[in-house]
Amino acid sequence: MSDLIIWTYDWVPEGPRGFVRDLRLRWACEEAGLAYAVKTLPFDARGPEHLARQPFGQVPLLSDGQLDLFESGAGLLHLARKSEMLMPRDASGEAQALQWTIAALNSIEMVTVPWWFLEITGAKENCLTGWMQSRLTHIERTLQGRDWLAGGRFTVADLLMADVLRVPKVRAFGDRPATEAYIARITDRPAFKQAHAAQMAHFAAADAARA
Amino acid sequence: MSDLIIWTYDWVPEGPRGFVRDLRLRWACEEAGLAYAVKTLPFDARGPEHLARQPFGQVPLLSDGQLDLFESGAGLLHLARKSEMLMPRDASGEAQALQWTIAALNSIEMVTVPWWFLEITGAKENCLTGWMQSRLTHIERTLQGRDWLAGGRFTVADLLMADVLRVPKVRAFGDRPATEAYIARITDRPAFKQAHAAQMAHFAAADAARA
Repeated sequence: MSDLIIWTYDWVPEGPRGFVRDLRLRWACEEAGLAYAVKTLPFDARGPEHLARQPFGQVPLLSDGQLDLFESGAGLLHLARKSEMLMPRDASGEAQALQWTIAALNSIEMVTVPWWFLEITGAKENCLTGWMQSRLTHIERTLQGRDWLAGGRFTVADLLMADVLRVPKVRAFGDRPATEAYIARITDRPAFKQAHAAQMAHFAAADAARA
Repeated sequence: MSDLIIWTYDWVPEGPRGFVRDLRLRWACEEAGLAYAVKTLPFDARGPEHLARQPFGQVPLLSDGQLDLFESGAGLLHLARKSEMLMPRDASGEAQALQWTIAALNSIEMVTVPWWFLEITGAKENCLTGWMQSRLTHIERTLQGRDWLAGGRFTVADLLMADVLRVPKVRAFGDRPATEAYIARITDRPAFKQAHAAQMAHFAAADAARA
């Protein structure tokens, strides 16, 4: 039996399927060959017990034996310690993977998620578009010069950055061929496909159970 | 001579002084008693050399001997490995500090920074206010129950969360007494005061040099 448990919702509407962030942790475990189980929290009733474990009422949680971690970024960095596949062990490769993991969370997603939110809530003019353009242009320039963000190989930073950039509205924003090739290459990995299919099957089974 | 170098701008306008993110790294070094030097990059001319070291044209950078890291969050986690003062060494305390550090970057700052941006650019109705309200309410509830975010003591997660929450417009948003007490307590630490004063003096000296 595995000590790693990834907690996700028991069900979500169709919209977010394939993008619920438990996928990041499933994907990392698949890349690293780490055994894990998936358990669920109720989507409909996010009460005090949920908030006690995840203070923003979200998923995923990662349990590792007695430890419980929220924040998918924290879960990824925790898993990365278990496998050189996710995080190089030399000081330079490790520093690069760390900085690009944080960049995905705090320089890219800090702009793309609110931009996406303004898009779907139908703001007439999306005030964050200039900022988004600037950040994505910097990423495009970076990816024109290399296939991977850190250490000359796939790392957890690529997993996270590709997951941030593959959101359909973000992916469709502008003409950014190096970024598009990067997303396509990384989401073509068997571990991504396995994690994605497993998440889709998980929520489809929940539909069947509800019907 | 110290191997740690914190890179910031040679000058910035008055507005961001006291909030430029080199302060986070100065503060962490002060808390941990780590020796460091401060060096500068030109604020006015952010050209290819700057972008080669910091792909978004920002500061800070942290140099540690041969290593160069961008992203203040990555710099903090790198420094946290050097000192138990910043990050507990037991598995539970470490996991808690990691998750709350990432929460500051990806659950709080991902909302507060775009919200602040919409405020200062004068959006008639700030569409992110409901989201901001929700996240800050969750933080207030968390801080009603404890003095520190992780491991029952000050950690790098408090340093970062307090720095995120002390932004004046964010700090003034709503009536959140536990959060206000938290910010006041943490920014009353000698290491914060020292780092803040040093940043203010750095930019004041730059004014004098320009005059």
